[in-house]
Amino acid sequence: MTLCDVPAVPELHPVLAERFSPVRFDTSATVTTNHVDALLEAARRAPSAGNSQPWKFIVARRGDTNHAQIVRYLARSSAQWAPGASLLVVNLAHVRVEGTEDWEFSEFARYDLGQAVAHMTIQGLAMGLDAHQFRAFDREGIAAEFAVPSHWEATSMTAFGTAAHAAGEIVAPGTSRDRESLDDITWARN
Amino acid sequence: MTLCDVPAVPELHPVLAERFSPVRFDTSATVTTNHVDALLEAARRAPSAGNSQPWKFIVARRGDTNHAQIVRYLARSSAQWAPGASLLVVNLAHVRVEGTEDWEFSEFARYDLGQAVAHMTIQGLAMGLDAHQFRAFDREGIAAEFAVPSHWEATSMTAFGTAAHAAGEIVAPGTSRDRESLDDITWARN
Repeated sequence: MTLCDVPAVPELHPVLAERFSPVRFDTSATVTTNHVDALLEAARRAPSAGNSQPWKFIVARRGDTNHAQIVRYLARSSAQWAPGASLLVVNLAHVRVEGTEDWEFSEFARYDLGQAVAHMTIQGLAMGLDAHQFRAFDREGIAAEFAVPSHWEATSMTAFGTAAHAAGEIVAPGTSRDRESLDDITWARN
Repeated sequence: MTLCDVPAVPELHPVLAERFSPVRFDTSATVTTNHVDALLEAARRAPSAGNSQPWKFIVARRGDTNHAQIVRYLARSSAQWAPGASLLVVNLAHVRVEGTEDWEFSEFARYDLGQAVAHMTIQGLAMGLDAHQFRAFDREGIAAEFAVPSHWEATSMTAFGTAAHAAGEIVAPGTSRDRESLDDITWARN
């Protein structure tokens, strides 16, 4: 495994320590095709249950036609900030077996999509791109607009770009950046 | 954002490109308390819907009492390799509101757990630890053994350690390392 900066004493990687979800992006920043390819490649290589790869993505750079299609389906809250990001990605989960109403494709469809999106956002951070995932959009509207079949779900969106504020300087209404302690999240440990 | 090695042309980070899920670990490799702390810290800082943090972890190092408790509940397939890893982590999702039978805690509980585990495994890679997530264990048995309440689910486990083989040299039976192409996972792109 090629590594970057393995510390003598294990410590949290700065990319993971310093990440936050911006609620204002630099509206002049852009991403290249290479950025988009690298983000998709990170998701493509993520692990999944039985290598089922229950994910697909709709990719839209600010100013392109996909972007114009997507922003129409943002909720009022996300419409205030998400269109200013350099890139919007709609994250699709393969939730049902095609042609069935209630046959789950994989019990890990959303878990695996979460992992793939995490790999994508960490790849973004490694390229200097901040990310904010959100749910405030019209799932059915997006699905219809892009002819997403009913056995796939438009689970979440990610806005990628350059944060226009520091961590904690602005926080989305109704949310908090507070975290439980290490003890809180540890159910058992010797 | 502090970065390590931002390339001139964006490219996939080597940690993400070279990762794989080993099916044999170096049974002499160990991890320190600092490793465990850094892994938990990576999960703790992961993003989640409305900052709901729907995750907890049972941590067991090879040789400790938690480890002995966990390995009794591995399925035959995972029992062949997982006990040899340096560390086993049981990943718990907050799936229901306490005291209810069918009131979902968050529609993103498993998605968010997948993200937190991804952050944990990438932190592991940054410290030189390989990881293999799996489902082949007795969920109810583990939950009973560690008195996990019924509104939490023992969703998955992660084995962390030092791979004892190269990527692709050994593949778990019934699985494949093949990936869909970038085009396959891209539903729409301009």
